[in-house]
Amino acid sequence: MVNIPTIKLNNGREIPQIGLGLWKVTEDAPQTVYDAIKVGYRLFDGAFDYGNEKEAGQGVKRAIDEGLVKREDLVIVSKLWNTFHEKERVEPIVRQQLEWWGIDYFDIFYIHFPVALQYVDPKDSYPSGWTNLEGKVVQSKASIQETWQALEHIYDIGLAKSIGISNFQGSLIMDLLRYARIRPAILQVEIHPYLVQEDLVQFAKSEGITITAYSSFGPQSFLELKWDKAFNTPTLFQHPVITALATKYGKTPGQVLLRWSTHRGLAVIPKSTTIDRLQENLDTFTFDLTDDEVKQISSLNQNIRFNNPPDYLGALHIFA
Amino acid sequence: MVNIPTIKLNNGREIPQIGLGLWKVTEDAPQTVYDAIKVGYRLFDGAFDYGNEKEAGQGVKRAIDEGLVKREDLVIVSKLWNTFHEKERVEPIVRQQLEWWGIDYFDIFYIHFPVALQYVDPKDSYPSGWTNLEGKVVQSKASIQETWQALEHIYDIGLAKSIGISNFQGSLIMDLLRYARIRPAILQVEIHPYLVQEDLVQFAKSEGITITAYSSFGPQSFLELKWDKAFNTPTLFQHPVITALATKYGKTPGQVLLRWSTHRGLAVIPKSTTIDRLQENLDTFTFDLTDDEVKQISSLNQNIRFNNPPDYLGALHIFA
Repeated sequence: MVNIPTIKLNNGREIPQIGLGLWKVTEDAPQTVYDAIKVGYRLFDGAFDYGNEKEAGQGVKRAIDEGLVKREDLVIVSKLWNTFHEKERVEPIVRQQLEWWGIDYFDIFYIHFPVALQYVDPKDSYPSGWTNLEGKVVQSKASIQETWQALEHIYDIGLAKSIGISNFQGSLIMDLLRYARIRPAILQVEIHPYLVQEDLVQFAKSEGITITAYSSFGPQSFLELKWDKAFNTPTLFQHPVITALATKYGKTPGQVLLRWSTHRGLAVIPKSTTIDRLQENLDTFTFDLTDDEVKQISSLNQNIRFNNPPDYLGALHIFA
Repeated sequence: MVNIPTIKLNNGREIPQIGLGLWKVTEDAPQTVYDAIKVGYRLFDGAFDYGNEKEAGQGVKRAIDEGLVKREDLVIVSKLWNTFHEKERVEPIVRQQLEWWGIDYFDIFYIHFPVALQYVDPKDSYPSGWTNLEGKVVQSKASIQETWQALEHIYDIGLAKSIGISNFQGSLIMDLLRYARIRPAILQVEIHPYLVQEDLVQFAKSEGITITAYSSFGPQSFLELKWDKAFNTPTLFQHPVITALATKYGKTPGQVLLRWSTHRGLAVIPKSTTIDRLQENLDTFTFDLTDDEVKQISSLNQNIRFNNPPDYLGALHIFA
């Protein structure tokens, strides 16, 4: 079994530095999660919005039933969708999500986006995405402070062992830290060599907040969504800087990209649905890049953000 | 007298599209403000932090005493410094700043930065800058909501006719709009061809918030601070794209840069201390760039931000 390094969060809890991202894992979610546990994954990064919490939970249940792991060996992660930012919406939907997973606590629970949208009943639309039942993007008035305090309550009553934020920026994080009774343990954001975010990485480090990088492969993660920006950006898998290092170390470009992130102290959550790829992504701690090579990859930065709501919604300029 | 276009704010008030920035106007502030009024300036963009409100007020008083203008012809702007973010600090310092200016209301009053620092008594240090009396950067716990509500009070009692925010980013502005009883009328941020901020400009437009651009000349504004980043970035005044347009229209590079901003719907506040330059900056509405030329200048964007606190303080990652 692979030996996965861990990262200690600011609340003393530990998480594996690599986990499985469940975004876009659809039909085969039960099998994928089960396979992942079998090859050594222990962290599963889910979300209401991914629409597969029930299925992911089935994979977990099978692995536990077969004695592969115990619940306490796993780090199960989920996120609060934008439509549940009002304080009275938070606990009910967390309990619903736990029920889907078939567990009684999350290890990490994030605010998915600093975006508050009009409530949509999951019975009417699941996952509801960014628009209400009339197809419109309608914001709600729930402030981030209101929503964070609701997450603190979730933490207080033990439904989440750690709480975090996702897709938050510098000055908004600074503001949250002013009123937070429980500090965020973890921040999940898009990071890859085209969006290095060195300033954010330094900031989070200085505040003792661990970063989990998503979309570690850059444009790759967005090709299946058929986004122009992803097609119009050269793949990192064939970038000469990446392929040269892959050749040097006898690794794949994907493994080099993950190692670049973990060398920077980030946790990563690559998605995969095949056993070979699951194993390949896990096998990224058996080689080291030099400091210069890490910097060489960082110098590919172009500030290209793929997951930018105005690009696909024409609204919600959270990264402006 | 030059005819200066105006911009209508979301509260119905109008401001001239160009004004005089008072940052770094030091010894000759009374004369500079007086001269500026004489050549046609009506908006004066000051701040506690600029350390020259008394002197700027002397220039205003002289012009009014001589009958050049009336108070109501002027748009006098100031800003709340970081050390006064606690709600009980706001009204007293606003009244102090008004006293320095010798006026009884501001036309626009901004939160200068989304940064709350430990209180420093102006009697002990003026302007105190980013550090306390021990030379340390120490944050306070005043949230942006607390400070914004204090500005709303200033607006309610008539000490400011419009209130605004400066150096705020997307998701923090979105959060403020959730709880704002009085929406910000205006947002002041760094914008120049090396930091185009198209996403922020679109966002502000969609929310009906006027943008005032500062440091319209890019690195130029920071040379006198002897900042490496400014010296290491090629001046826009000699950039071939800018000089070609200057030649085409018989204008200076500076005038082309200001016209690029005003074509984008922004207000501008270039600093100058000589009458010739004051007039030159004012004379920027007598020619038009084509849409293609505006885009050509925008394509110089490199996301280079000069006024970034971590660069000069090693802390306060507000733009991360």
